[in-house]
Amino acid sequence: MGKIWDKIRGIRDRSRPFCSVIIPAAGASIRMGGGSKQLMDLCGAPVLMRTLCVVDRAERVDEIIVATREDMLETVAEMCSRAGLQKPARVILGGNSRLESVLAGALEADPRAELLAVHDGNRPLIRPEEFDEVVRHGAITYAVAPAIPVSSTIKIVDENMRIKSTPNRSELYCAQTPQVFQADILKAALQSAMDAGVSVTDDCSAVERLGKDVYLIPGDPENIKITVPLDMVIAEAILKRREREQT
Amino acid sequence: MGKIWDKIRGIRDRSRPFCSVIIPAAGASIRMGGGSKQLMDLCGAPVLMRTLCVVDRAERVDEIIVATREDMLETVAEMCSRAGLQKPARVILGGNSRLESVLAGALEADPRAELLAVHDGNRPLIRPEEFDEVVRHGAITYAVAPAIPVSSTIKIVDENMRIKSTPNRSELYCAQTPQVFQADILKAALQSAMDAGVSVTDDCSAVERLGKDVYLIPGDPENIKITVPLDMVIAEAILKRREREQT
Repeated sequence: MGKIWDKIRGIRDRSRPFCSVIIPAAGASIRMGGGSKQLMDLCGAPVLMRTLCVVDRAERVDEIIVATREDMLETVAEMCSRAGLQKPARVILGGNSRLESVLAGALEADPRAELLAVHDGNRPLIRPEEFDEVVRHGAITYAVAPAIPVSSTIKIVDENMRIKSTPNRSELYCAQTPQVFQADILKAALQSAMDAGVSVTDDCSAVERLGKDVYLIPGDPENIKITVPLDMVIAEAILKRREREQT
Repeated sequence: MGKIWDKIRGIRDRSRPFCSVIIPAAGASIRMGGGSKQLMDLCGAPVLMRTLCVVDRAERVDEIIVATREDMLETVAEMCSRAGLQKPARVILGGNSRLESVLAGALEADPRAELLAVHDGNRPLIRPEEFDEVVRHGAITYAVAPAIPVSSTIKIVDENMRIKSTPNRSELYCAQTPQVFQADILKAALQSAMDAGVSVTDDCSAVERLGKDVYLIPGDPENIKITVPLDMVIAEAILKRREREQT
């Protein structure tokens, strides 16, 4: 997976740049049946609280900023204090779109932040070591995300659902988060996408749009995004298996 | 989803062509840890047996052909008889690849078969009514598959894992099975792909390669393909929920 990474892995990692994490957790969850998926209980703790705790345990994280909706501000602030986070954490008002929320978070980051990591509030199953690994690569390449190979056959269709093409599956990857960026590049990319009225489904896309190189590194299939009710079942099964493995 | 389908749905469906179903069930399951995923127990019955029973219950199916490995021939034949299938079913020796297995099945089909449906042996959660719906569309369009919208952001990468592009997610669909074809078109397409030494990840791709129109219709997200161990957990959860809903 990427010859360039074999070289990069050899680079001695002397730098330890300041990294702020932005967690967009503002979306009304239509696919989840209305309520907020971030507040749903997953084996005894809300999804978002689990996400916060894992991110807090990542060694390369210096600050956490959660961008949420107005009606969730208080709940999320209380969740942060209940979680007993070690790192400085702030809850801010997000925007009307994911893009706006991430940009709001980026502009609130500590001025010392050289790196900005964006992580979905509904990806609670990332492991702290994996989070650190992405941040470490972000410090080398300036724009990086974890990704897993696509196992299904993907079709590109026209407006009549006629297949236009079947892209070569071996070149397709499914992007996850955290996505880690050099702070100035992310801010410029988000502002530019916003000004142009472009909608992007992830933050890498905004940076790609500016013609900057963005790299992928191997992700973990268990780092799922909780989007539909079935995902809660999967997440529970993964957590229970991990608990069994620990004992 | 596809204006053309609104028109097609209006067509009175007078024809009822003979349809043979080919079930490739030959793969050694590397991603499942060695054993065959088709023989694994899913809530009291092997995965493949569940698939066979559902396909058998589809009204528009006239014949079932399972293409499997030499060492599984006896087990699968026994499974067919234990399942008490209503439709004529045969078990044949598949080839070294999925392509070869499906072609072997196609050549064994009843000469009356106007339509050939290919369905993965490890997709036991399809519902008979959905199977019929795809066959019905196959009779109208000659090449059709069910598909669901892609919910992740997909990246196309180069050999260094640098992102080349992010295809517009709204045009991306994840192809499922059954894939239903006019019999002669499928046979020609598979033979042509085989002669050219092309590897295809689904049967539609072989037909697309010949420049023929292939259409997608809305699939069911629960019609998952059991590929990795986590998929068994998901399949169990879906089956248990369906049982609860029935009682």
